Amino acid sequence: MQKKYLMTPGPTSVPTDVLLAQARDMIHHRAPAYTEVLREITARLKKVLGTEGDVVIFGSSGTGAMESSVVNLFSPGDKVVVISVGYFGDRYAAIAEEFGLQVIKLSYPRGSPADPLDLEKTLESHPETKGVFITHLDTSTGVENDLEAFGRLTNPRNVALIVDSISGLGSSPLYLDAWNLDVVVSGSQKAFMTPPGIAFAGISSRAWNMVERSRLPKFYWSYQKSKDAYNKPIPQNPFTPPVSLLVAFNEALKMVEKEGLENMWSRHRLLAEATRAGLRAMGLKLFATGGWGNGVTSVLPPEGVDGGKIVRMMREEFGITIAGGQGDLKGKIFRIGHLGYVDRLDIILTLAALEMTLARLGVEVELGSGVRGTQEVFLKAEG
Amino acid sequence: MQKKYLMTPGPTSVPTDVLLAQARDMIHHRAPAYTEVLREITARLKKVLGTEGDVVIFGSSGTGAMESSVVNLFSPGDKVVVISVGYFGDRYAAIAEEFGLQVIKLSYPRGSPADPLDLEKTLESHPETKGVFITHLDTSTGVENDLEAFGRLTNPRNVALIVDSISGLGSSPLYLDAWNLDVVVSGSQKAFMTPPGIAFAGISSRAWNMVERSRLPKFYWSYQKSKDAYNKPIPQNPFTPPVSLLVAFNEALKMVEKEGLENMWSRHRLLAEATRAGLRAMGLKLFATGGWGNGVTSVLPPEGVDGGKIVRMMREEFGITIAGGQGDLKGKIFRIGHLGYVDRLDIILTLAALEMTLARLGVEVELGSGVRGTQEVFLKAEG
Repeated sequence: MQKKYLMTPGPTSVPTDVLLAQARDMIHHRAPAYTEVLREITARLKKVLGTEGDVVIFGSSGTGAMESSVVNLFSPGDKVVVISVGYFGDRYAAIAEEFGLQVIKLSYPRGSPADPLDLEKTLESHPETKGVFITHLDTSTGVENDLEAFGRLTNPRNVALIVDSISGLGSSPLYLDAWNLDVVVSGSQKAFMTPPGIAFAGISSRAWNMVERSRLPKFYWSYQKSKDAYNKPIPQNPFTPPVSLLVAFNEALKMVEKEGLENMWSRHRLLAEATRAGLRAMGLKLFATGGWGNGVTSVLPPEGVDGGKIVRMMREEFGITIAGGQGDLKGKIFRIGHLGYVDRLDIILTLAALEMTLARLGVEVELGSGVRGTQEVFLKAEG
Repeated sequence: MQKKYLMTPGPTSVPTDVLLAQARDMIHHRAPAYTEVLREITARLKKVLGTEGDVVIFGSSGTGAMESSVVNLFSPGDKVVVISVGYFGDRYAAIAEEFGLQVIKLSYPRGSPADPLDLEKTLESHPETKGVFITHLDTSTGVENDLEAFGRLTNPRNVALIVDSISGLGSSPLYLDAWNLDVVVSGSQKAFMTPPGIAFAGISSRAWNMVERSRLPKFYWSYQKSKDAYNKPIPQNPFTPPVSLLVAFNEALKMVEKEGLENMWSRHRLLAEATRAGLRAMGLKLFATGGWGNGVTSVLPPEGVDGGKIVRMMREEFGITIAGGQGDLKGKIFRIGHLGYVDRLDIILTLAALEMTLARLGVEVELGSGVRGTQEVFLKAEG
């Protein structure tokens, strides 16, 4: 008998109530019962995104919603800046290039956040820039960018700020309207503890103005088609939506509402701090040098140990799925997710298993040291 | 207490085992447990599509997979023929036009199938045609096109034949390899009795050759990215797939395997014949004039009765969701789906409820006549 724990930066663990909501009898996506679900989800997502503007929903992964922001706002040849602090920033650049945008890429060493000063200089020397793409939380390293600071640069210049907050949203504060963000894309399978398959985007009025002028072809991803369908007498999606996932997502959003968004952010911050304190107390080195977000922690394996081996032993011996490094970082780091349906004891059991894993791999580690490190943070937070 | 019945052409009713398979603990999409699911689904889909070629899987509705066939095979300005017998043929034309293809549209009156002779003439006068798009079963009317006959025209001319079999696959025979089809797109939520959110495409070697030359931009829909991810040492999807839906889809495909594909086709044919016999026995007129497929039956409401009213009363009074007309046919027809997880008694109860609905609406109808019409077909089939 071995219980399973999903401690990756997504898909994340799903509460039983949300899992079971998927199993309700299928309803038709043009019938009144579904419309009620769509209305509720849309209202809840507006709160989560901090916007009074429109939200569109897609049956897709987060990458689909990233693509949607490119094809809905821009035209071939448009100049854009892509800020990359990791794997997912690189992905945004790849999408923008694929669709013929002229991309200026501001790349940062993995493990560091982006510096707003660099964007300011770039926008000064490229005043024709139409949009800036940025990752909120890049799960490849756990680093988070300061969206508010970037919004202060783009907004007065009337440049669209497009945010991949697939992993950031729900784990850290984000205010689409107040921070002058223009498109924020996210998904169901991270902080929102729902299975993958739903993506969504919040859209500012500046972004809608750009949609009108965009000349890139679009059909499935069309924001306008989504808006038109939602504005029918019976609100609906333009194409058959993933009904069972949406019913489950609505349940998860009810749980978010009950916890309260601010409490959810605090919980994620506490879990992140405890994880990092525990890892340091075990003598491990964290990968990022600053700008940590709250969703995932990247860790350097002890000297001479392959990160992939740790991931494998954690899964096989203890039933805990953590993540290895992506791309260039494969084998060089491992990542512990603390995103979504996670509480204090999940962190404790993960670090306890990690201590045992390292001991098995011949690393000198004081058993209980990591656990104690997290306990101290948790007890202090309650005091 | 009112039980619910989903008798639409999709999403269709989902068996409890498939519903509950969604509720299993979430697994990570790069971990071995998921790989096994992906391998099994891929193998099963190849059988269902009648192909030894590649199958790619998307988290999206069927429309997403339709878009994928346009952006993966073609380049702006390419000449294509779109054969339309209804709402979904029109959709393929709209997608192809949106992406800059030069579209010759062969439109047929709603309720009639396409005539291969027309395509033959068109291909003779437009020898530069690169592809032909066709709907297998157009659920807007229930009419099915003879794919094999069209494949005999396109194959010797080395023209790609691209098939929307979202609703046809599983309800009628289709053999991708033997009929020389090049791309067949379909989805989870029709004959395959799984919730919506998964689309897939079978791809011929001719189609792969076209993928290499295509200049339309693509990222989420890229067939090449799917193939590359599947061919990694651990087969996977390029982007986070809808894991819980895929686990459920695999269960449904196991049920298909158990029933046997040929038996599944026969069951759908029998249910379609019984539905039509029953409707005629009630004195109703069917909408299509020929070329019926097996997935859905379109019906003309009795003189002076709005189709929408019938749909509403069936749902509100009897808990049965059937479908109204789409686009131009709104209010003018109603549609009964018999697709997926449907057996003889579902047809009988639906016609019984329809008899009562019509009686309530003041239509002169002999109670039991429709039911008797279906019973006769069912009894004869067993004899």
